[in-house]
Amino acid sequence: LRSGADLVVIATTTRLIDVAADIRTAVGSGSNVIVSAEEAAFPWAVDAVLAEDIDALARDRGVTVLGGGVNPGFVFDALVLTLLGTTTTASTLAVHRTVDISGFGTVVLGRLGVGVSPEQFQRGVVDGSILGHAGFPQSMAIVADALGLTIERIDREIEPLVAPSEIALPQLAISAGHSAGVRQVYTALVDGEPWYTATFTGHVDLDMAGLTARDEIVSQAGPGLRCTLEPGIGAQRGSAAMVANSIDRVLSAPPGWLTVADLPPARPRFDPGVSERRSLRPAAEETTT
Amino acid sequence: LRSGADLVVIATTTRLIDVAADIRTAVGSGSNVIVSAEEAAFPWAVDAVLAEDIDALARDRGVTVLGGGVNPGFVFDALVLTLLGTTTTASTLAVHRTVDISGFGTVVLGRLGVGVSPEQFQRGVVDGSILGHAGFPQSMAIVADALGLTIERIDREIEPLVAPSEIALPQLAISAGHSAGVRQVYTALVDGEPWYTATFTGHVDLDMAGLTARDEIVSQAGPGLRCTLEPGIGAQRGSAAMVANSIDRVLSAPPGWLTVADLPPARPRFDPGVSERRSLRPAAEETTT
Repeated sequence: LRSGADLVVIATTTRLIDVAADIRTAVGSGSNVIVSAEEAAFPWAVDAVLAEDIDALARDRGVTVLGGGVNPGFVFDALVLTLLGTTTTASTLAVHRTVDISGFGTVVLGRLGVGVSPEQFQRGVVDGSILGHAGFPQSMAIVADALGLTIERIDREIEPLVAPSEIALPQLAISAGHSAGVRQVYTALVDGEPWYTATFTGHVDLDMAGLTARDEIVSQAGPGLRCTLEPGIGAQRGSAAMVANSIDRVLSAPPGWLTVADLPPARPRFDPGVSERRSLRPAAEETTT
Repeated sequence: LRSGADLVVIATTTRLIDVAADIRTAVGSGSNVIVSAEEAAFPWAVDAVLAEDIDALARDRGVTVLGGGVNPGFVFDALVLTLLGTTTTASTLAVHRTVDISGFGTVVLGRLGVGVSPEQFQRGVVDGSILGHAGFPQSMAIVADALGLTIERIDREIEPLVAPSEIALPQLAISAGHSAGVRQVYTALVDGEPWYTATFTGHVDLDMAGLTARDEIVSQAGPGLRCTLEPGIGAQRGSAAMVANSIDRVLSAPPGWLTVADLPPARPRFDPGVSERRSLRPAAEETTT
């Protein structure tokens, strides 16, 4: 069976259930798959039977499936794990991401809870039409699984960030008093104690809200560590880059449904023809696919 | 051939030539190897024939060799590549590391150039007894190779940081006017232009020198990115952790002499028995070794 040459990128929507059929079709026809759907970053957290089933199919076909972009896929998981490589002690984690969401279309903004009154926001949360950003439980599961920890529970909070005055985006006009952003706090508990707190603040006008685009990871392990990214990784530009830069690592990965914890760093490749080292190691690709 | 069960850590000295025989012996007897020697992080940059030879032996024996700690192995290479996953544009890189070197013994401090007059320092640089910290060309080569860039030349500068007053370390007394630290600047050129500048400042008394332990990575790609680690990763504690946390990823890696660009993030493992996901994926280890 020849495999590893084809790769399909599925960048449509958020939920695993909505992309599962497409993933299955691609895998079944022998294609590697990169999925931007947030829930696909750690599908075992959503539907373990489905995840196991597609994982087995991928192994049978000799192809790899990876879910991921920037969030999940980088800020709350891959970068966290990379930093934790420098410590051997268990600790609590706090990750804060503040991001400009003005570039998203009305469907995504609506799902995030932008453009509605606080009352509409609360109703939307209750009826499931307002989700905020998805994928935090997946990032937490990726990190916990890699560290050998078991998450007992994830507590969730979500609240609207209300615009003090009207904001006119090209795609959406937001009235004063309506939501121009969202703040979400996820707290994962291990052994009865808060272990990982993820705070996400998305806003269509960071300046107006007195916010700055940044990502921050704080670990209490050892002497403590604070990692700050300024500006924070752009939501759309960053995710598109992560997908594009993951093609090589997916094509050379072992088969199955993997996570970013299983793979070497995604990286851009500016001139694939000139590697000094690869030319010394002609068998490299054969041993990793 | 059964392999992958044994692993040897070689944490002795800096130069490839001084650890090559030990690596060869370990690999020849079927052991995986983690080497802390700075030059082993990218051995092709030092002795491509030797690197190719041990790489071939490792493939023959089905074992993996990895060189790396924190520097090289993390700050100037793995973390840089991880961050670059979020961009698709070529750019210049600047990495600054400021680190407390007071914990090192007299042999290492002497090699770094600590405890001598500026004149002795310059003579030591000329006669090769003072090296500063090693491994920057290796880190640069790891990043360049992963990105598909070819380094034309690496320019090097090294200077002593002179103590204004006496410093009494338990292991070494440094007279006023003698070196209490070292600053090194490495500049790698690609296509005739500076591409990657690595600045290392090591000092036995950061406070006295008005310095703060921190690591900083600045990329000009896209909208630009500044990643700051505060405090910076400790030299000894961090490197010991990176070696310990690399055991799992080396044992499950494909055979050959690999670099940190080839491997998933090192991470501590607190409870190897409880992974929800691994239990769903019983064949995982078989497909990656």
